[in-house]
Amino acid sequence: MNMKNKIYALLATLTLTILFSINVMAQEKEQMVRMAKIKVDPLQLKEYNAALKEQMNTAIKLEPGVLSYYAVADKKNPSEITIIEVYADTAAYQLHIKTPHFLKYKTRVEDMVKSLELLELDVIGVARKPGN
Amino acid sequence: MNMKNKIYALLATLTLTILFSINVMAQEKEQMVRMAKIKVDPLQLKEYNAALKEQMNTAIKLEPGVLSYYAVADKKNPSEITIIEVYADTAAYQLHIKTPHFLKYKTRVEDMVKSLELLELDVIGVARKPGN
Repeated sequence: MNMKNKIYALLATLTLTILFSINVMAQEKEQMVRMAKIKVDPLQLKEYNAALKEQMNTAIKLEPGVLSYYAVADKKNPSEITIIEVYADTAAYQLHIKTPHFLKYKTRVEDMVKSLELLELDVIGVARKPGN
Repeated sequence: MNMKNKIYALLATLTLTILFSINVMAQEKEQMVRMAKIKVDPLQLKEYNAALKEQMNTAIKLEPGVLSYYAVADKKNPSEITIIEVYADTAAYQLHIKTPHFLKYKTRVEDMVKSLELLELDVIGVARKPGN
């Protein structure tokens, strides 16, 4: 390779690196992370949890922009549920709430949910062992 | 292989499969999942988040029984922090709170934390795309 070609190759690599970095930063910046705090009718808890799990698994399987769900319950008050939801961006979330599986879940749990609080979150940090 | 050896091989495989399954079930059952709800002095938020991240990363690196941390803040109230922590079992958690890095974190943030609420959790479900 002569000097001119070397410089071209270097510039091409630099440009690609910068574009890739901007893209990665944009993706990280755009992610939408939400927390849903839900109080469920204790008498309908089993049915609620089943409906929630069906919705979560279907969304992860079918929707490219739904990245993760983590649903937990307070051991002392199992009907107090927290869900952390991660979407690729707000557009992915807007698509999600119009899907048949989400609308089916919403109708199914309408009479089971006593209260619902939604928070938008910033991620401070995630640390995990591989496979966790 | 004659018939006797085939039966021995089959029994050995069955026994290993059963033992492995029991082990996996025990591990899942024993996991300790906690939520820490922390209100931080807004004037010391940057320092608190740095201390938290250092503690999380060190624990994941050094302690076999610390499986994951997920730390988030309310976008509207960034000093209201939620951490979901997963330990292999309660023994792993008891070891964790005696480690130098955890004790260092506790001392460092003592004057930054305005309130701390700890909940033990049951996992209802986790659904994730690969790599999330």
